[in-house]
Amino acid sequence: MPRRTVSHEDGAIYEFTPELEPVGTVEPGTEVTIETRDSLDGAIQSDSDVIDAVPDEVNAATGPIAVEGATPGDVLAVRIEDVRVAEDQGRVITIDGFGLLDGYDEIDAPRTRMTPVEDDAISFDDFEIPIEPVVGTIGVAPAGESYTTLVPHDHGGNLDTTDVTAGNAIYFPVFQKGAMLAMGDCKAAMADGEMCGTGSEIATEIDVTLEVIESPSTTIERPLIETSDAWKTVASAETLEQACERANLDAIELLSAAHGFDLTEAYMFSSLVCDLEISQVVDPLVTVRNAIPKAYLSSPL
Amino acid sequence: MPRRTVSHEDGAIYEFTPELEPVGTVEPGTEVTIETRDSLDGAIQSDSDVIDAVPDEVNAATGPIAVEGATPGDVLAVRIEDVRVAEDQGRVITIDGFGLLDGYDEIDAPRTRMTPVEDDAISFDDFEIPIEPVVGTIGVAPAGESYTTLVPHDHGGNLDTTDVTAGNAIYFPVFQKGAMLAMGDCKAAMADGEMCGTGSEIATEIDVTLEVIESPSTTIERPLIETSDAWKTVASAETLEQACERANLDAIELLSAAHGFDLTEAYMFSSLVCDLEISQVVDPLVTVRNAIPKAYLSSPL
Repeated sequence: MPRRTVSHEDGAIYEFTPELEPVGTVEPGTEVTIETRDSLDGAIQSDSDVIDAVPDEVNAATGPIAVEGATPGDVLAVRIEDVRVAEDQGRVITIDGFGLLDGYDEIDAPRTRMTPVEDDAISFDDFEIPIEPVVGTIGVAPAGESYTTLVPHDHGGNLDTTDVTAGNAIYFPVFQKGAMLAMGDCKAAMADGEMCGTGSEIATEIDVTLEVIESPSTTIERPLIETSDAWKTVASAETLEQACERANLDAIELLSAAHGFDLTEAYMFSSLVCDLEISQVVDPLVTVRNAIPKAYLSSPL
Repeated sequence: MPRRTVSHEDGAIYEFTPELEPVGTVEPGTEVTIETRDSLDGAIQSDSDVIDAVPDEVNAATGPIAVEGATPGDVLAVRIEDVRVAEDQGRVITIDGFGLLDGYDEIDAPRTRMTPVEDDAISFDDFEIPIEPVVGTIGVAPAGESYTTLVPHDHGGNLDTTDVTAGNAIYFPVFQKGAMLAMGDCKAAMADGEMCGTGSEIATEIDVTLEVIESPSTTIERPLIETSDAWKTVASAETLEQACERANLDAIELLSAAHGFDLTEAYMFSSLVCDLEISQVVDPLVTVRNAIPKAYLSSPL
């Protein structure tokens, strides 16, 4: 199959809704290059450009792309082969009313700091920060409710999770025919937490292969990430505590299904080997993951 | 100086108070081997031993050890050279009223699972889990209030932080003359989060070198951890969100002091490179760390 290219100019959404119209349809197994614009739609091009309030439309997600044959109950596998930055600078910003330290007197908002790209790094003051791209917003058409691209939930959306990067895969439950995948809001670099509310926001080209897993051996209700050495459940909730509970419950259900542990055994086992990790603490819902090393879970799906 | 040995039989505390009596006094630079009993004082020796409620006395901390010359305003450096398990089994338990998933119908509490030690691993069902010891409770005499060894706070205490292990260092503000270091509550293995409320609780021998940093170049108000590649602030609070705020504020203050960033610049910088990490989500206060890679901060103290 020839590689397909889908650009944000072909279509981009600011809301994941149950009834999305695709900008294109691909067969399972297709390699797709997805071009994304920066999360702020190009509004910030210098340190003097600032954002006074979180825009109504933010995190444009290129797509949606329908995958032939994807049917509710299936799982959509998005294998991320490469993420390339596609402009010569990113930007990190503060916005009044947004961010972990919003409201602290010492923190100035709005403010913008451009981060020029030089070779494989962005620069910030005297420091070179290696480019390690993150796809901030990625998801599928949800089951019932709609979610703007500022919000993470069970369909994915604004997960702002550093593991959504080249070399890893992210799996979504298929809630609607065709799955309707869309992604954008990429960063040249971002820390776990995304404390100020952004990473280095930047346009990218993302190479993915899309596959459909029919009749998966385990049902997933939320996104699941595969890295080189772990399976990570991903859960978003109003508080970090609630997100931790949900991510841990999902993880122990996977362990229980794979090994015949009852849930209490799986819970004890997770307390020994399954790290809880912070994805982001700044969006309308916060996001946590629970990592199961592959040494203890080879393939849950 | 000869190596000193301090055993839990010499003395152990269940509360960090401002006025502690030392079981011994050492000169700065002394190598000390600290023998700790398991966090449950040996009460659990088989799967049929269970704990009905969190005991009034738990996490016995061997010590306290006074360090000559340590004076309020100094920093106590605890370099952890080795942590060896000192019994042939650990135990992981659930206790009613305790743990991330406390109250879920599917989770059975109390329950106990012994984890036998075999070579460099503990076993759990068919799995061998490499022993990677964690010193769960470690701290110094606090400034004013007292804290039981179940509670983490600015003096340290029940931090349950996986980075408190061999090869790393932990630094404490000295609040009282002699600092009064005590530690215990070790685990043969524990995940970030410590979800069920324990790791594999086990007796250990801990080799440390104790040093006093007089007139540190930066004041610290809480514990600070040094790993091979990062400096990590450590903060405990009632909610994970509050702990994230405190840990991030401490991190950006270190970045600001080192590089002349204003706090907003440091905040933006942290959002690109300083991961927020979960230590534990189960103690009366929860604990978070914020990791500053050494590439961006060579030596804050």
